Amino acid sequence: MTNPVIVETTRGGIVESRHRGAVAVIGPDGTLLKAVGDIDVPIFPRSAIKALQALPMLESGAAAAFGFTDAEIALACASHNGEEAHVRTVRGMLRKIGLDETALACGAQWPRDECRLRCSGGEPGDVHNNCSGKHAGMLALARHTGADTEGYWKIDHPVQQRIMATISEICDHDLSSAPWGHDGCSLPNWAIPLRRLSLGFSRLATRRDMPPERARAAERITSAVRANPFMVAGTGRFCTRLMDAVPRAFVKVGAEGVYCACVPHAGIGIALKCDDGARRAAEAAIAATLASLDVWTAEERSRLRALATVPIENFRGIRTGEIRVTTALDDA
Amino acid sequence: MTNPVIVETTRGGIVESRHRGAVAVIGPDGTLLKAVGDIDVPIFPRSAIKALQALPMLESGAAAAFGFTDAEIALACASHNGEEAHVRTVRGMLRKIGLDETALACGAQWPRDECRLRCSGGEPGDVHNNCSGKHAGMLALARHTGADTEGYWKIDHPVQQRIMATISEICDHDLSSAPWGHDGCSLPNWAIPLRRLSLGFSRLATRRDMPPERARAAERITSAVRANPFMVAGTGRFCTRLMDAVPRAFVKVGAEGVYCACVPHAGIGIALKCDDGARRAAEAAIAATLASLDVWTAEERSRLRALATVPIENFRGIRTGEIRVTTALDDA
Repeated sequence: MTNPVIVETTRGGIVESRHRGAVAVIGPDGTLLKAVGDIDVPIFPRSAIKALQALPMLESGAAAAFGFTDAEIALACASHNGEEAHVRTVRGMLRKIGLDETALACGAQWPRDECRLRCSGGEPGDVHNNCSGKHAGMLALARHTGADTEGYWKIDHPVQQRIMATISEICDHDLSSAPWGHDGCSLPNWAIPLRRLSLGFSRLATRRDMPPERARAAERITSAVRANPFMVAGTGRFCTRLMDAVPRAFVKVGAEGVYCACVPHAGIGIALKCDDGARRAAEAAIAATLASLDVWTAEERSRLRALATVPIENFRGIRTGEIRVTTALDDA
Repeated sequence: MTNPVIVETTRGGIVESRHRGAVAVIGPDGTLLKAVGDIDVPIFPRSAIKALQALPMLESGAAAAFGFTDAEIALACASHNGEEAHVRTVRGMLRKIGLDETALACGAQWPRDECRLRCSGGEPGDVHNNCSGKHAGMLALARHTGADTEGYWKIDHPVQQRIMATISEICDHDLSSAPWGHDGCSLPNWAIPLRRLSLGFSRLATRRDMPPERARAAERITSAVRANPFMVAGTGRFCTRLMDAVPRAFVKVGAEGVYCACVPHAGIGIALKCDDGARRAAEAAIAATLASLDVWTAEERSRLRALATVPIENFRGIRTGEIRVTTALDDA
């Protein structure tokens, strides 16, 4: 099945480039509200799944035991910019656990504002890595459950096995035999169909059909991320801008053109992937998909629509075209 | 017509993302040697067409009048990094013309190594813009032909009209009624089918069916760029790496997933576009398309093939997958 073109860019009034993709929207009772393209082929969710990866950290009591704040929980679900506040918060989490940066296995990564660190003669560390909050959360889970903090990133480690089981349960999709690969930060990332991924995010919103500890974990996570949009990404980032504009939505980007979202007040979950992995397309598509839901105030809808069309300006500020969604995203 | 998948990325042994596109290869007598996807829909060639835009600069006698060196001619065909040598060379060209940076209309752009300039407290100027060499070449053409050096970037300026006519002639495609848009550097960019664009590059290689001044201009351009791969792009750039590895090929990237190439010793021209605009896909595709031609030594072919498959490593240096071309590019 060839996925439809969902986003296009223009120049001189004609289409210049085209992005194909698939989108799944699940409603509060688990019904498929919208399906665009092939939502049954497994895709790597990448970082978009972080909020589900974080559930065991709360369910197990680890987050409570170490006194993690909402900001820290949001950071555990984040692909952050490595700004000062992010780095400071990750270090704080590690201190609470009784560990330091040497425990992290995500690998060093330059912060988004690379020059700031370079100009001061600094070198990036694991703590600057956009996934370091997630890794700190997993270390907390390991510590609290008495598992080894060494090798927590390996697929056969109890922490990863628990996370895999959790995602499998909430998404109603057995990942134990799913294709998997190493993520950028070395953790296992299991391939899962958008139909299942969106179901998981719908359940994150509704908190139905799950044990009480998971429901409480889901409630804490969805509140924490929406109350701390800066932690989830950072300055200038789309996730942060969207959640700043529409706090009733939780959105999370994943590398290679993935977005997941949940709308707690409406019990809706969304998962989408742009075939070619383009972030610009995934951003426009998640904003447009959210905007198309009949669950917003006029102001919220207007803000979401505005995020779905991005003007393209050249080096002299001349508007040469735009990034926009296609009618393929209109279909219910 | 839906273009085939020509490049894919992998993770954990399965395909993660897919890029569709089209490719046209024209032989020395103007015959179509290879067609992948729709090669008749007009696309914006963007910077890939710079070598054709530079023809009037030579044909008119401007390059000779100002004593432009091969390096300067290469820079006039370049999307350069804004490294010290690039900036110094552009400034040299402007001096030869009797102008300075204030004459440029490309707009300021941070050089590729942005931190270097930032850390020294500098600000980017038009001269750092990746297109500044092209613009300097156009100013030379304006000066030499007695045209106004103000507004040389506008579509109705004699310089742009001459360039449009030149591209139309060498590509056998009337651009006077073609869709056009402002490029990133504000110059007009006309949409042209890959079938025609590749013909233009084949003629750049064969120098057939053109007036002697154009043939001499084509010869000078194709020699200058291949002798100065660093000027055409710069440190770490794919065009530079490929031409360093295989000097008998000339390749030129264009924004939004475009590549043009010519192989002078074989009279072959190539033009391709990745539907979604991805540079990583266009790079793999141009290397693979070149490699598939039966015109190389074993060593040249081996080097081209190596450039068509790119390992993907994560933050810890673990190889998580690769960028690779598909069998769609095998078809003759």
